[in-house]
Amino acid sequence: MIKVAINGYGTIGKRVADAVAAQPDMEIIGVSKTSPSAEAFVAQSRGYPLYIADIGRKPDFEKAGIRVAGSVEEMLTRADVVVDATPGGVGAKNKPLYEKLGVRVIYQGGEKHLLAGFSFNSSCNYAKAIGRQFVRVVSCNTTGLCRIIHLVDTAYGVKKVRATMIRRASDPGEIKRGPVDAIVLDPVTVPSHHGPDVQSVLPTIPITTAALIVPTTFMHMHVVMIETEKEADREEIIQLIESHPRLGLVRPATGITSTAQLKEYMQDLGRSRADLWENGIFQDSVSVVDGHEVCLYQAIHQEADVVVENVDAIRAMIGEVTDAETSIAITNKALGFTAI
Amino acid sequence: MIKVAINGYGTIGKRVADAVAAQPDMEIIGVSKTSPSAEAFVAQSRGYPLYIADIGRKPDFEKAGIRVAGSVEEMLTRADVVVDATPGGVGAKNKPLYEKLGVRVIYQGGEKHLLAGFSFNSSCNYAKAIGRQFVRVVSCNTTGLCRIIHLVDTAYGVKKVRATMIRRASDPGEIKRGPVDAIVLDPVTVPSHHGPDVQSVLPTIPITTAALIVPTTFMHMHVVMIETEKEADREEIIQLIESHPRLGLVRPATGITSTAQLKEYMQDLGRSRADLWENGIFQDSVSVVDGHEVCLYQAIHQEADVVVENVDAIRAMIGEVTDAETSIAITNKALGFTAI
Amino acid sequence: MIKVAINGYGTIGKRVADAVAAQPDMEIIGVSKTSPSAEAFVAQSRGYPLYIADIGRKPDFEKAGIRVAGSVEEMLTRADVVVDATPGGVGAKNKPLYEKLGVRVIYQGGEKHLLAGFSFNSSCNYAKAIGRQFVRVVSCNTTGLCRIIHLVDTAYGVKKVRATMIRRASDPGEIKRGPVDAIVLDPVTVPSHHGPDVQSVLPTIPITTAALIVPTTFMHMHVVMIETEKEADREEIIQLIESHPRLGLVRPATGITSTAQLKEYMQDLGRSRADLWENGIFQDSVSVVDGHEVCLYQAIHQEADVVVENVDAIRAMIGEVTDAETSIAITNKALGFTAI
Amino acid sequence: MIKVAINGYGTIGKRVADAVAAQPDMEIIGVSKTSPSAEAFVAQSRGYPLYIADIGRKPDFEKAGIRVAGSVEEMLTRADVVVDATPGGVGAKNKPLYEKLGVRVIYQGGEKHLLAGFSFNSSCNYAKAIGRQFVRVVSCNTTGLCRIIHLVDTAYGVKKVRATMIRRASDPGEIKRGPVDAIVLDPVTVPSHHGPDVQSVLPTIPITTAALIVPTTFMHMHVVMIETEKEADREEIIQLIESHPRLGLVRPATGITSTAQLKEYMQDLGRSRADLWENGIFQDSVSVVDGHEVCLYQAIHQEADVVVENVDAIRAMIGEVTDAETSIAITNKALGFTAI
Ligand SMILES: NC(=O)c1ccc[n+]([C@@H]2O[C@H](COP(=O)([O-])OP(=O)(O)OC[C@H]3O[C@@H](n4cnc5c(N)ncnc54)[C@H](O)[C@@H]3O)[C@@H](O)[C@H]2O)c1
Ligand SMILES: NC(=O)c1ccc[n+]([C@@H]2O[C@H](COP(=O)([O-])OP(=O)(O)OC[C@H]3O[C@@H](n4cnc5c(N)ncnc54)[C@H](O)[C@@H]3O)[C@@H](O)[C@H]2O)c1
Ligand SMILES: NC(=O)c1ccc[n+]([C@@H]2O[C@H](COP(=O)([O-])OP(=O)(O)OC[C@H]3O[C@@H](n4cnc5c(N)ncnc54)[C@H](O)[C@@H]3O)[C@@H](O)[C@H]2O)c1
Ligand SMILES: NC(=O)c1ccc[n+]([C@@H]2O[C@H](COP(=O)([O-])OP(=O)(O)OC[C@H]3O[C@@H](n4cnc5c(N)ncnc54)[C@H](O)[C@@H]3O)[C@@H](O)[C@H]2O)c1
Repeated sequence: MIKVAINGYGTIGKRVADAVAAQPDMEIIGVSKTSPSAEAFVAQSRGYPLYIADIGRKPDFEKAGIRVAGSVEEMLTRADVVVDATPGGVGAKNKPLYEKLGVRVIYQGGEKHLLAGFSFNSSCNYAKAIGRQFVRVVSCNTTGLCRIIHLVDTAYGVKKVRATMIRRASDPGEIKRGPVDAIVLDPVTVPSHHGPDVQSVLPTIPITTAALIVPTTFMHMHVVMIETEKEADREEIIQLIESHPRLGLVRPATGITSTAQLKEYMQDLGRSRADLWENGIFQDSVSVVDGHEVCLYQAIHQEADVVVENVDAIRAMIGEVTDAETSIAITNKALGFTAI
Repeated sequence: MIKVAINGYGTIGKRVADAVAAQPDMEIIGVSKTSPSAEAFVAQSRGYPLYIADIGRKPDFEKAGIRVAGSVEEMLTRADVVVDATPGGVGAKNKPLYEKLGVRVIYQGGEKHLLAGFSFNSSCNYAKAIGRQFVRVVSCNTTGLCRIIHLVDTAYGVKKVRATMIRRASDPGEIKRGPVDAIVLDPVTVPSHHGPDVQSVLPTIPITTAALIVPTTFMHMHVVMIETEKEADREEIIQLIESHPRLGLVRPATGITSTAQLKEYMQDLGRSRADLWENGIFQDSVSVVDGHEVCLYQAIHQEADVVVENVDAIRAMIGEVTDAETSIAITNKALGFTAI
Repeated sequence: MIKVAINGYGTIGKRVADAVAAQPDMEIIGVSKTSPSAEAFVAQSRGYPLYIADIGRKPDFEKAGIRVAGSVEEMLTRADVVVDATPGGVGAKNKPLYEKLGVRVIYQGGEKHLLAGFSFNSSCNYAKAIGRQFVRVVSCNTTGLCRIIHLVDTAYGVKKVRATMIRRASDPGEIKRGPVDAIVLDPVTVPSHHGPDVQSVLPTIPITTAALIVPTTFMHMHVVMIETEKEADREEIIQLIESHPRLGLVRPATGITSTAQLKEYMQDLGRSRADLWENGIFQDSVSVVDGHEVCLYQAIHQEADVVVENVDAIRAMIGEVTDAETSIAITNKALGFTAI
Repeated sequence: MIKVAINGYGTIGKRVADAVAAQPDMEIIGVSKTSPSAEAFVAQSRGYPLYIADIGRKPDFEKAGIRVAGSVEEMLTRADVVVDATPGGVGAKNKPLYEKLGVRVIYQGGEKHLLAGFSFNSSCNYAKAIGRQFVRVVSCNTTGLCRIIHLVDTAYGVKKVRATMIRRASDPGEIKRGPVDAIVLDPVTVPSHHGPDVQSVLPTIPITTAALIVPTTFMHMHVVMIETEKEADREEIIQLIESHPRLGLVRPATGITSTAQLKEYMQDLGRSRADLWENGIFQDSVSVVDGHEVCLYQAIHQEADVVVENVDAIRAMIGEVTDAETSIAITNKALGFTAI
C-alpha cells in the first residue's frame, strides 16, 4: 500500500483524498488543515487522521470537537507520497521542508512548472514521471487541453491550436470571489499564458489561447479549434473520444447544452461530489471545417479533472505500474468511473 | 410493499423516487417522462420502469436508447399511491384521470390547496392524512416555515410571525429562468401569499410574509421573527431544534454563513444529490429579542425538504403507520439521514 | 427634415428615437407601445407622440396618465422612414402592412436577411442602401464583427476569421431571462449561424464562429482571430482603429479589463444611457501572431452599437447623403460621440 | 462659494463632486486619486483639478496623460469643507492631518460614528450639524432607513421597527467581489449592526435588523415593517411619501417590480449616472397590517442616496442655510431632481 498524505485539505485535496482511499494499492495516512472548518468535520467523518500546520492551534480544533493527530511535519514523515494541494504559491514555500525530509511530492497547477521541473498528464507523459521526487499535475484547464490535443495530434498531427477558455469565476463553495455581473479578461493580453502551460506537457504544439472569467461556478467551457496535418473525419474523432478513458461525449439525446445541466447529470448519476473527471465534449459541437480543422466545445470541471491525474501521478512516481493504460484503468475502476 | 408511481420525473420526482426506493415498506413501480432527456437516462440507470405521457412518442425514446414500459395510464393502474410531481398546474389537469382510476395521489406545492382539500406537513398534521385519497405536500418554503413555527408554537405559543423569504431564482439545472442581476419582488405586494399557505397547515397562526427572488440557485433563505406568548429562552430553543428530526443546526465551528457553503457541506457529507432535507438553521442567528421574539435565519433547500414529506405522506395515506414519529423515523433511517 | 417613426419603443427603439431626435436632418413623429409601462412614461417625458398597436387599449393608457396620439397605422402613414424595433419575428408579421402603405422600413437583426433582402452596416455598404424600401440593420454581434473585419480586410486582406462570442444573457432591465449560474452553448453546434450573418454584409469573408451565453447583462465580448493575406503590424492596426469613427480603444492606463468597468466608464463620461456605440477594443489585447494573424478582444454593447447604424441607414435610404463618411460624421457629431 | 475638496474620487466621491459642482453656492476646488485609472480621466474631462496622495507617483499620472495639480495636503489647505470618500477605515487614518489643518470634514458610512461624533441625515437632524468640524453621513442603508422611519415616526409614532436588508454584493463597476451564486448572511447574527447605526441618528427608535448579501449590483432592497403607536392609514402614508423631497413612489403603471427595472427607468429619465437619490418605495407594497403596522419595500441605490446628503451636510456645517427644507430644496433643484 502506498502511503499518501494530503497537505492542504481543500477543494482539490478533499477530492484527491477520497480518490486515493478508493484505490486498491493506496491509503490515506493523513490530511492537513490550518484552521477548524466544515472540511475538518468532513475529514473526521471520513476517518482521515487530521494534522495541523500550526500545532499551537490544537486547542481551537479540540474545542470545536475535532481530533488532531499531530503536526504537518509528523504527517509528512509518515508518507510515501505527499499531495500538496495548498493554495497557489504555498507549495513553493513548502519545498525546503519537503527537500529536508526527502519525501516525494505532487504539486498542483497553482505552482510554477519550474518548482517541480516536470509537468504531468497521465494520457500524455505518464512514463516520464517514474521515479521522480517532484511532479506537478497541470491545472484543470491545461489538463483538459492536453487530453484532447494529444488525441488529435496522435490521430492527424496538429498544425495549430486555437483555444478560448471561458472560465468559471469561483468554485461553488467560495463566497468572496466575483465578479457578479461582468465578463473579465484575465489576462487582457492575447495570447494568454495557457498556451505555454500546455507546452510544458506537449512542447511542440503551436497554440494560441485566450482566457476570460464569467460569473458562474460549475465548470469551465473551452472552445477548441485544431488545425490538423492530415485530413480529419468527424465520425472517426467521435469514436476516438468514445474509446478514450478520460474523454466523455455529451450525447444530443440528453438535451444538455450547458455546464449547469451537465453538473446536474453527474449529480443524478451518483458520481462522488457530482464530479466530471473527464472532458465533457459536446457531441453535437464536434465538427471538421474544410477537412483540416477540428472544432468542438468541452466542459472542464475545474474541481474534478485533475483528481484522477493526481492518483495516476502517485502511481507513476512510485514506479510499480510503468504504463499509463494500466494505471488509468486501475484508477477509473476504483472510482466506478465509466466515461459518460 | 406500497407500490408507488412517480408522475413527472423531474427535480422533485427523481428525488422522491430514490427516497421511496430506499424505504423498507415501499417500491417504485414506475416513473413518467414526456420526452427523452438526461433524466430519462437517469431513470433507466436506476432501473425504474419508464412510462410516457404520449405513447405515440415511444419511437423517439427508443431511438435514443431508452426503453419504454408503457403509457402513464398503465402506470397509474398499477400503483397504490401516485406522487404527482408534474409542473405546477398540470396536476390539476390530471385530476379527472386520477378520479376515474380511483388511485391515491399526492400533489406538490405548485397546486392549489383546494385541489387536494388537505395540505400536509408530517411534523404538523400527519395523522389527519390517514386514509385520504388526495393530499398536497405544501411547497418548499411553506414546509420550512411550518416546521419551525410549529416547534415554537408548541414550546411558547405563537403570537405573530413575520417572515421574509429570499428565494433562489432557479434550480441549478435550469438555464432559462432569470434574473441575472436583479432583486425581484414576487409578489410586489406585502404580505405575500405565503402566509395563507402556512395557514393551510397551521390555520390559527397570525403571519405576515414577504418574498423576493435573487439570482442564485442553491437554496432559499428565510428571515424568521416569531413573537411568542410565553418568554422564550435561546438555549432551550437550540436544544429543541437539535432534537427535532427535520431541523438541523449549522454550527459556528463550520464557518458556514451562506447557502453555497451549506450545499458544499452536504455534498462533502455524501448526501444523495447533496440534499439538505431539514431546515438549515444558523445557530449563531438564533436569538431572543426582548424575551418574547425569536429571530433566526434558516436555509431551505427547495429541491429537498419536501422529498421526505412526500415519503411520510405516502405512509400516512396508506395508514398502516398511524403516528408521525414512527414514519419520520423510518423515512430518516432509510435515507441514512441524521440532521447535521 | 426626415420624418421618422419608431415602431416598437423598447430597448433598441428608445435609443434610436433619441439618436434620431438629436440629428439636424431628422425628427421623431411618433413611437409605439403595446401596453402602458415605464417606457411609455419615458416617451411622454421626451415629448414623443405615442401611438398604440391596439387602439382598443387606449383607456388603459389614459387611466395610467399616458396620452395616446393614435393607432400605429396612423403613425406609419405620417412617416418617411419607419424603424421597426419590435421583438424578433414581429417585424415579419408587420411587413404586409408596410407594403400596403408603401413606407420605407428598417428592420433589426432579430429579423431574417431575406425579409429585407439587404443587410446593412454603414462602414461596409452604406451606398448600396440608397433608395431601398427595406433595409435590415444586422444584429449587435454582426455589426461589431463587420466593423473590425472590414477594417482588417481593407488593410491586409482577410484569409480566415475565427471568432468566439461570449454573449450577455439578458439586457440589464430584463428580469425573466437567465441563466443564473451556467455557461450555455447557443447553439451547441460549431460553427454558429453568426458567420453566415456576417456574410450577409461581407459575402466573401471565410469565417467560423462560436457563440455562448453567460450570466451577465452589460455587453458581449468577442475573441477575434483574423488570419491576413499580407503581413500585419500591431502599431499600424492600433492607428487604424484610432482613426475609425466606430471603433474605440480601451487604453491600458484606464485599468479597464471587463465589460462592467467599461460600462461604468461610459456612464462616467456622461454618454446617453451609458451607451458604447463603438466596438470597445482592448488595446492591450491587440496582437499579431506569426505576422499573419490579428488577435484582439472587443466589447460590444448590445443595446447601443446598432443605434448609430439605424441613423445612418435612414439617411442612406432617403439618399440625400450619398457617402458613408459624411453620414457617419453627421450622426456622430449630433450625439457628441467621439470614440473613447 | 463654498470651496469643496473631494478626498477619494471613487464611487461616492465622483458623484458628490458632480452634485457639488451643480450647486449655486459651492465649487469643487480639487479631487484626489491614488493611482492613474479611468476615474482620473473622468475627473480631467470634468475639469476638476486632480491631486494625488503620493506626489512621488506624479510621473505615472503624467505618462498616462493626466495632469496633476499637486498633493492631497495642498488640496486640503485650499478647501472650506473636505468630503472624505476614501475606502472605509482610511478616513480614520486621515483624521490627524485634518485636525492639524483645522479643516471641516465629512466622513462616509464606512467610518465609525465615534470618528466624527455626529451622524447626519438631512431629513432628521440637519440643524444639529451647524458649525461642526466633523460630520459623518451615515451609510446608504442607514440613510434609507432613517428617511422612512422618521416620516412614520412623525406621523404616527414608532413602536418598533423590523427591517431586512437584502444587499447588493458589489457596485456594478467592481469585478473582484462576489459571491457569484450564494445568499450570504452578513452578519450571521440577528439583529445586525444596522439597527444601532440607525440609532446614531434616531436614538430612541427600537429596531431589529437583519442583513444578507445577494449576487446583484444595482441596488439594495429593504423589507420594512414598522409598528406604530397611532393607527396608520395607507392612503395617508402614500401622500406623505409623495410630498417628501427624498422619498419616491414606484408607480404600479410602470410595471416595475425589481431593482434592475428601476435602474433602467432612472437611466431612461436621463438622471446623472442613472442615480436614484431618493428611496424607491414600491407603491403596491405599501400596506397597513392590523391598523398598526406599516409594511413596504424600498429600493436603495447604494451609490446615490448619500450623495445629496453630503451636499446638505456641507451647507449645514458652513451654517449659512440653517434649515433642512431650504437646503434640501436648493440641492434638489440644482440636480434637476424631482422625486419619481
Ligand atoms: N479549485 C480549483 O478549481 C483548482 C483546479 C485545479 C488546480 N487547482 C490548484 O490546486 C491547488 C489547491 O487549490 P484549491 O482550490 O484546492 O484551494 P483551497 O483553498 O480550496 O484549499 C487549500 C487548502 O489548503 C489549506 N492550507 C492553506 N495554507 C496551508 C498551509 N500553509 N499548509 C497546509 N495547508 C494549507 C487550506 O486550509 C485549504 O484547506 C492550487 O494550486 C490550485 O491552483 C485548483
Ligand atoms: N423545484 C422546486 O424547487 C420545487 C420545490 C417544491 C415543490 N415543487 C413543486 O413540485 C412540482 C414539480 O416541480 P419540479 O420543479 O420538479 O418540476 P420539473 O419541471 O423539474 O419536473 C416536472 C416533470 O414533469 C414532467 N411532465 C411535464 N408535463 C407532464 C405531464 N403532462 N405528464 C407527466 N409528466 C409531465 C416533466 O417532463 C418533468 O420531468 C411543482 O408543483 C412544483 O411547484 C418544486
Ligand atoms: N436588445 C438587444 O440587445 C438587441 C440588439 C440588437 C438588435 N436587437 C433587435 O432589435 C429588435 C428589438 O429588440 P429589443 O431588445 O429592443 O426588444 P424589446 O422587447 O426591448 O422592445 C420591443 C418593443 O416592441 C414593442 N412591441 C411588441 N410587439 C409589438 C407590436 N406587435 N407592434 C408594435 N410594437 C410592439 C414592445 O412593447 C417593446 O416596447 C429585435 O429584432 C432584436 O433582435 C436587439
Ligand atoms: N459604494 C457604496 O455603495 C457606498 C455607499 C455609501 C457609503 N459608502 C462609503 O463611502 C466611502 C467610499 O466608498 P466608495 O465605494 O466610494 O469607495 P471606492 O473604492 O469606490 O473609492 C475610494 C476612492 O478613494 C481613493 N483612495 C484610496 N485610498 C486613498 C487615500 N489614502 N487617500 C486618498 N484617496 C484614497 C481610491 O483611489 C478611490 O478612488 C466608504 O466609507 C464607504 O463605506 C459607499
